[in-house]
Parts: sequence; C-alpha cells; structure tokens
Amino acid sequence: MTSEFELIRRHFSRPTPQAILGPGDDCALVAPSPGMTLAITTDMLVEGTHFLPDTDPSRLGWKALAVNLSDLAAMGARPRWALLAGSLPEACDSWIGAFAEGLFACATRYGVDVIGGDTTRGPRNLCLTAIGELPAGTALRRDAALPGDDLWVSGQPGLAALGLAHLQGTTRLPEALAERCLDSLLRPLPRVELGLCLRGLAHAAIDISDGLLADLGHILERSGVAAEVFVAQLPPLPPDADPVLARRCQLAGGDDYELMFSASPEKRSELAALAGRLALPLWRCGYLLGSVPGRLAVFDEEGQLLAIDQRGYDHFG
Amino acid sequence: MTSEFELIRRHFSRPTPQAILGPGDDCALVAPSPGMTLAITTDMLVEGTHFLPDTDPSRLGWKALAVNLSDLAAMGARPRWALLAGSLPEACDSWIGAFAEGLFACATRYGVDVIGGDTTRGPRNLCLTAIGELPAGTALRRDAALPGDDLWVSGQPGLAALGLAHLQGTTRLPEALAERCLDSLLRPLPRVELGLCLRGLAHAAIDISDGLLADLGHILERSGVAAEVFVAQLPPLPPDADPVLARRCQLAGGDDYELMFSASPEKRSELAALAGRLALPLWRCGYLLGSVPGRLAVFDEEGQLLAIDQRGYDHFG
Repeated sequence: MTSEFELIRRHFSRPTPQAILGPGDDCALVAPSPGMTLAITTDMLVEGTHFLPDTDPSRLGWKALAVNLSDLAAMGARPRWALLAGSLPEACDSWIGAFAEGLFACATRYGVDVIGGDTTRGPRNLCLTAIGELPAGTALRRDAALPGDDLWVSGQPGLAALGLAHLQGTTRLPEALAERCLDSLLRPLPRVELGLCLRGLAHAAIDISDGLLADLGHILERSGVAAEVFVAQLPPLPPDADPVLARRCQLAGGDDYELMFSASPEKRSELAALAGRLALPLWRCGYLLGSVPGRLAVFDEEGQLLAIDQRGYDHFG
Repeated sequence: MTSEFELIRRHFSRPTPQAILGPGDDCALVAPSPGMTLAITTDMLVEGTHFLPDTDPSRLGWKALAVNLSDLAAMGARPRWALLAGSLPEACDSWIGAFAEGLFACATRYGVDVIGGDTTRGPRNLCLTAIGELPAGTALRRDAALPGDDLWVSGQPGLAALGLAHLQGTTRLPEALAERCLDSLLRPLPRVELGLCLRGLAHAAIDISDGLLADLGHILERSGVAAEVFVAQLPPLPPDADPVLARRCQLAGGDDYELMFSASPEKRSELAALAGRLALPLWRCGYLLGSVPGRLAVFDEEGQLLAIDQRGYDHFG
C-alpha cells in the first residue's frame, strides 16, 4: 500500500505563497501582517454525525474548509491560512485525491493557503483549522449587539436542512429544488465577502450553522439583549416544499452558512446597497430590545406569537 | 443529559490572558507580538490508533496538548495558544472533567492559553492545534542541517515504545522501569525549554515522534545530507529490559517526544553546558556528511554496520 507520506505529498503539496514554510516540517511558519489581529477557528466533521458515509469526497473537501471560513466570515476576518488533520479508515488514493480537489477548490476560491496538517488511521474524521486577519478592533463579536439594532440575515436559510430531509427520505423535493438544497448542504458558500463588508457597518454577527433561532440565542445571551423576529420578513419559502417542514428548516435547521447580524437602523440604505453589490439578498427580519435580556419572541405571518419548540441543534442535547 | 454547550462551559472556560477573545464566539482573537513569526501545528489522536480505550483521560488530556507543544519545540517556538476539537461517543461529565484537568495542567505548565475549539459526537478523536512565536529567521527547520554537523538527541528515546510493549504484554518490565516507561508514553514532557535554547545554537531539529531513525531520515532528505549514527554513543539501555527489544525501541519506537538536532562541532561545549543547565542529557550520537544525500549508516556497539529494517512507523505503511 502507498505510504502516508507519499499520499500526502501527492495530493497536498501545493504552493503556499502566503507562508514562510508550508507542509513538511514540524510546524508551518507564517508572518502575520503588521498590526493585524488574528481570528482562529477549528471545526471537526465526523462521518455519521456531519456527513453520510457515501458523501462525494470532493464536495466534502470543499465543505470541510468552507464551514471554517464561515466562522472567519462571521468575525469579519479575511481568510489566509488553513491546516487539515484527517483520520481515514484506509489510504484510498482516489478518495483522498477527490477530497483534496474539493478542498483546494475552496482554498483557491477564497484565497487560503493550506499550510500543514496531520493524517492518521481511524474512523473518518476531518478537522480543519482556519486563520484569518482583521484590523484591530473591527471584529464582529457576538457580544456587540445593541438594543435598537435591526436584525438581518443573508441568503436563504433552511435549504441545507431541507436537502438533508430529502436525502434521508423524510420529504420528497422536486428535482430542481432538491439540487439547490443539496448544493447548500454539500457545497456551502461561506459569506466571506459579506463579512469583510460588514466591518464598521454591523455590530454583532454569527453564522447560523446551528440554526437561525439557536444562533440568534447566542447573540442575545452574549450581548444581554432581547429580540423580536418576524417570520413574514424572512425570505419566502420555496413554493414546492412542504411549508411546515420548510418553515421549521428555516428557523431551526442546521448546516446553513448564512450570516445573521445586527446593525443600527441608520445603516439600512447602506446595507440595501451592499446586498445589490454582492448580489446576495439581505433580509431585515426583526430588531433588538434592551429587555428582557435573552428573551426571544417570534411572530408568524399573521403576527401571532409562535411557540418555539425547536430552537436548534445541540450535539449532546 | 447535559448539553454540549453546558459541558464546554463547565470544563473549558478558563481565563485566556494571552487572547483578545477566548472561547464562545465564532473565532478566537489574538494579537501576535510585533515582528514575530508564528509556528503552527496540528495533531490528531485517535482511540485505537494512538491510545487505548481505557487510557486515563487526565493523562490523555496532557498528552493531546504535549505532542503539539513538542512540534513547536522542534521549531524553537515559544508556545502561546491552542485550540481543541474533540469527538466523543457520549457526553460523560467525569471523563470530560478529567480530560480537561490534564489538558489545562499541561497548558499551565507551558504557558499556553486554550482559546477555542469544537465538540461533537462520534468515535473518540482529539485534535489539537497549537500556535507559538519565534523571532523571524530563527526557526529550527528540517532543511537547515549542514555537512560536518554533529548529530544530537535529548533524553532517553525508546522508553515510550517499551512502555507500550509492556502494556500490550509483549514484554514484562520490572515495576520501577514500567512506571518510568508508562510515564514517557502517557505523560510525555515536550522539550520546549530545550527548543528555545537551541535557537542560534542548532541548525536543524525534529521531534522523534515517529522513531529516531525515521525522523532522522526526514532531516537527511530535506537537507540533502547523509548521516552516520553510533549506537554506542546513544544513551545506555535500561539494564532491566530485554536488550534486543530495548534497542529496537530506541532506534525505531514511536511516541518519543525528544528532540534530535544538528549543530556545528564548535558548539559542543555550549551544548554540554546547556544540558547541565536544563538537567537534561544531550547525546552526541553521530555526524552528518555531504554525500550520498539521504544515506543513513548506523553502527552497532562493536562498530559493525547495522542492517536497518525498522526505520520507524508510518501510519499507512
């Protein structure tokens, strides 16, 4: 069988122009830009928990990096470097090759150098660490939301969870919608450009990978504010899907890599212009209040208070 | 059952004085020291591959961080920050508590802030990323060895592999030696102070976690040099162990976190003084030659060329 070192050399040796030293030593070496703050995140994807055993390895490679870049985007950081640690049941050249292809497609798209990693044998598990930079004091922190802020969300939350329901046979989507949903699930687009543009424009931001309401809950808790959310102001549900399921996916589905953020009402026109410039819809779906801290009220299309039972996804809940 | 968020809060919320923002947001935020280069490494420990299912979680917590700090030491970097991603089959409070205790004991000993991470459900797998700093141009790279350099190794390589053989029943060690070997295996001491002192003194360095000869091979390959190693100049074998097994463990055993390094012969007295100051033996066990690049000759106690069959451990070999 091909050795671990040989497989890594074959598939993961790419130029790393943003590093002093890339893969192949005890550590990678990088020189941060003078005066910049580093944003660092790590995310682990486990077979059976985060992806199905037959997931296309190329899409998985893209996603493993994309979910980390989404965390950088939610801080407003520019992605620069990533490291990959992976555990695999066997050293399958074609699987690793396809995985690397997806990973580097994502890295190239977002300007990231893959500077190091670790490969080992075991149940399939992929752990990425991503590092980005941002000017000191500009991070979009969860604790920075203010009472009176508008609440915004990007794109079309809920499609990934709908795609998963389709894959699992819980629902049956028409072909075109299924494809769109599976793309959201398997090849998410981290909102890196949006995050960069939100510096100085938004107060708090978070990516809604655990579900819209659950992640909003983190902003409320950390910022000590309350929120009112209006379902009628969220993006329209896909017309071909079961509306009850689609609404639940929108409010509580996981695996969405859209950004939710808060901003002063004075920024509405700037944000509308930004949405046009990025060709990415931004939905003003509610606002924040000073009291009661942590309280979340969601109103349905008729303006009735919604009973919230599924606030999100907690891996050990 | 206790939620993931609650368990993390309970066991992993510690002060992070070296960070702008620690755990609890999309990313951690840190400000690197002006002008310093960052050294970054990631290592994954998998149950069944790197540790046995009944391993004491506190020792495992120590080791998961220590193996990464060893990589920083091998570059001459001062450890500063770490992130932990972990997959666990269940949210067991006592296991996680003991693991955190060992992890933070190691972090405190070496001055590291644990600034973030990820927890999920799946087969037990622990992935640490560590970040250290060093002045620009001072890294101890694998490609920096020079013909004519002496070859040195620290401490007592081979004890960890002997400990593993004892645990697996392949050999039977007397109690005192077994304890010492198991300590090397389960609670290794990364040679951070040594690495810092070797800046400007050594040329190339590597930690010998894949086995002394296998890791020496990486220096030879990257630096384009040859080596002669004299077994008689390595540390004496423990007198109570099977000498054939003990020698094999010394030359080819994995899981040692000693440093092997090359240095000019002019530095011999400085290195001897350093060994005294650190109370850590340093063994001058061979030297490097210009040709043939990559060639490794090992001589036994009688000066006979040794046939090398077990150059180390390759996870997919």
